[in-house]
Amino acid sequence: MDAGDFRRRGKEMVDYVADYLEGVEGRQVFPDVEPGYLRPLVPATAPQEPDTFEDVIRDVEKIIMPGVTHWHSPYFFAYFPTASSYPAMLADMLCGAIGCIGFSWAASPACTELETVMMDWLGRMLQLPEAFLAGEAGEGGGVIQGSASEATLVALLAARTKVTRRLQAASPGLTQAAIMEKLVAYASDQAVATLGTTSCCSFDNLLEVGPVCQEEDLWLHVDAAYAGSAFICPEFRHLLNGVEFADSFNFNPHKWLLVNFDCSAMWVKRRTDLTGAFRLDPVYLTHSHQDSGLITDYRHWQLPLGRRFRSLKMWFVFRMYGVKGLQAYIRKHVQLSHEFEALVRQDPRFEVCAEVTLGLVCFRLKGSNRLNEALLERINSARKIHLVPCHLRDRFVLRFAICSRTVESAHVQVAWEHIRGLAAELLGAEPGE
Amino acid sequence: MDAGDFRRRGKEMVDYVADYLEGVEGRQVFPDVEPGYLRPLVPATAPQEPDTFEDVIRDVEKIIMPGVTHWHSPYFFAYFPTASSYPAMLADMLCGAIGCIGFSWAASPACTELETVMMDWLGRMLQLPEAFLAGEAGEGGGVIQGSASEATLVALLAARTKVTRRLQAASPGLTQAAIMEKLVAYASDQAVATLGTTSCCSFDNLLEVGPVCQEEDLWLHVDAAYAGSAFICPEFRHLLNGVEFADSFNFNPHKWLLVNFDCSAMWVKRRTDLTGAFRLDPVYLTHSHQDSGLITDYRHWQLPLGRRFRSLKMWFVFRMYGVKGLQAYIRKHVQLSHEFEALVRQDPRFEVCAEVTLGLVCFRLKGSNRLNEALLERINSARKIHLVPCHLRDRFVLRFAICSRTVESAHVQVAWEHIRGLAAELLGAEPGE
Repeated sequence: MDAGDFRRRGKEMVDYVADYLEGVEGRQVFPDVEPGYLRPLVPATAPQEPDTFEDVIRDVEKIIMPGVTHWHSPYFFAYFPTASSYPAMLADMLCGAIGCIGFSWAASPACTELETVMMDWLGRMLQLPEAFLAGEAGEGGGVIQGSASEATLVALLAARTKVTRRLQAASPGLTQAAIMEKLVAYASDQAVATLGTTSCCSFDNLLEVGPVCQEEDLWLHVDAAYAGSAFICPEFRHLLNGVEFADSFNFNPHKWLLVNFDCSAMWVKRRTDLTGAFRLDPVYLTHSHQDSGLITDYRHWQLPLGRRFRSLKMWFVFRMYGVKGLQAYIRKHVQLSHEFEALVRQDPRFEVCAEVTLGLVCFRLKGSNRLNEALLERINSARKIHLVPCHLRDRFVLRFAICSRTVESAHVQVAWEHIRGLAAELLGAEPGE
Repeated sequence: MDAGDFRRRGKEMVDYVADYLEGVEGRQVFPDVEPGYLRPLVPATAPQEPDTFEDVIRDVEKIIMPGVTHWHSPYFFAYFPTASSYPAMLADMLCGAIGCIGFSWAASPACTELETVMMDWLGRMLQLPEAFLAGEAGEGGGVIQGSASEATLVALLAARTKVTRRLQAASPGLTQAAIMEKLVAYASDQAVATLGTTSCCSFDNLLEVGPVCQEEDLWLHVDAAYAGSAFICPEFRHLLNGVEFADSFNFNPHKWLLVNFDCSAMWVKRRTDLTGAFRLDPVYLTHSHQDSGLITDYRHWQLPLGRRFRSLKMWFVFRMYGVKGLQAYIRKHVQLSHEFEALVRQDPRFEVCAEVTLGLVCFRLKGSNRLNEALLERINSARKIHLVPCHLRDRFVLRFAICSRTVESAHVQVAWEHIRGLAAELLGAEPGE
């Protein structure tokens, strides 16, 4: 396949992508396939001779699509949203073409520098304290990680390295293992300090946790994987109050800020805490500017060595939506979740199980866990909408998360009528409940 | 931006990408910019109102391209290759559109199942022992990680969990910290057991290391990040002999097998070693099939929770090149490195510093490290080609890696004449060397 073929096939693929996303509402949101469905549909080995593009694209509809859970269907209300926008997809095409691996400044200066500046842009959108920004000569700064798990692991390792060095400096006789045995990581019921938990989108109070950590000289990492995107709206920014006590903070624009996966934004107040823990300097990666203090080599900020030019996605999305466009998007989702909440509250058979703050509604039928398990089973078997459950304390609860970029009030209404209908069937069938 | 706009802009981007890759040979391979060049070129904050696509794409040429190191230029001979092919880019567009997060089978069955089957396809291309394949009911199997670093970390953690449990079962009184203090990870001069080191592409002899590990009950992880792709050619497969002793093996198709970053292929003989170490089962991720033994939930195989539909890239590339096309690509690169090696050997002022096995030639001017540092400085300052150095024992050595998909004999010849010219200037200027 040469550039000429790519011009032709690439444009066909653009149309396929547009057709898919325009038509995704008409596809069944959750697939019918059983485990192992795919293997019999493909050969046991790769072909020796090339297949044509037509063969491959035909098999996409025949083999792949029947097994896809359509996360961008407006009837998908499961998990949390995963971002999808056309500007991010355009940027990803460019990212693939440039195809640089930005482990050092020299490996592609634009890749490193755009990332630093985009993380400042995003930090300012969130009104993060200046200490987290790189600016011209700041000690802090941001980095794009692949996932919130990686960001949290990086924070844990940096914290461990820091405290180990402090203790070894104080007591040179201590072995690393003796120190490790004493180290404690404090975490909440649901995770570490968290803003917007997965189960019910609850919030830790950083204004209480923060001063304690500061007094005890504990590393405070704040994870707002889902909720963080909302903090670009002034009316939700108060949920981030206390972040000034944190050493590191992260959230996932790839969840709710229209930047396609992967793009997990992490900031630290002292970049040397990360680079001290992860520094890696083989001679084949050295370059003339690295000891100048002027540059950032992001390989020292993360676990993998390689990294894509992911900040292009942020740049395209932030510019082509504008801050106002992004705020409008968040607000629409929050408004839709409150709309669903109001519908649930109007029906006395149901209850809302947690405060609705952003785009998630936790709800259930009043009654047993078994009843609610049966309701979820009916909902997901019908395959018209898709939800997942959670446990809040000992209660089995249904999560209704506003996910799709294209979800509208009409979809929420349809979903609720559908749920009510299934609940009525269920309650009719089990009058004892 | 709606689907209609995307149809228009996406097609423009396809042309931009094709133009870029067709014309990359004419761009200066290494940029002129100084650290900090980008920040003054962009605003300090994101725009409130949307910018147009025209604004953004104009800035790509104005702001981004001047700071890009062009990894896909046929004059780029630095580091190791990073894969780039049109079929992989087409697949990535589709991957972005589907935009599923495949942490569990149910989160998108096709995403999980295609990955398992593609890893079997690739394993068979490499003639991996059957124990590493998933097949219909195998105990082993493959997973796509983001990078070889992640694969190695996953292997280390799995090995640590396994040995810790074994020791705790034998001596229930042992604390984890006491065990950790005793654990040893053996590694070579350059890394862990490695096939194809970064510095000089040397190979550990698995037929020697393997039986020792087996006898001592040590976890053997084999990393062939760069070299692994070559094992699809029968004439290079012998370099992988002894992999039958390994517990886990990985290499990066995103380096040398035309599958754009990221795609690091990892296999294990016992999938339970991974799932035992990383199992994570909150109720919002449970689904009806998970305890059936029939399905794979890849979140238990890796550090991050989220994962893209990366196997689409493998599927498109393997099918649209065919095994023969991929083999031809590897062979061309190896042949070009031998061509460069022959040129170096013809010039008595130069020496080749390590056996040339695959696509990397390590060479230097006979003489001091200072002389070779000066030569590299001249090469990279001229910006006509791009190389990076390494240290082999105490010697400063230049690495000439065949990288670009489009590099031809003519580029290698031009590069060599350029290097010779700069060397002649240098030796003329420093006759004392």
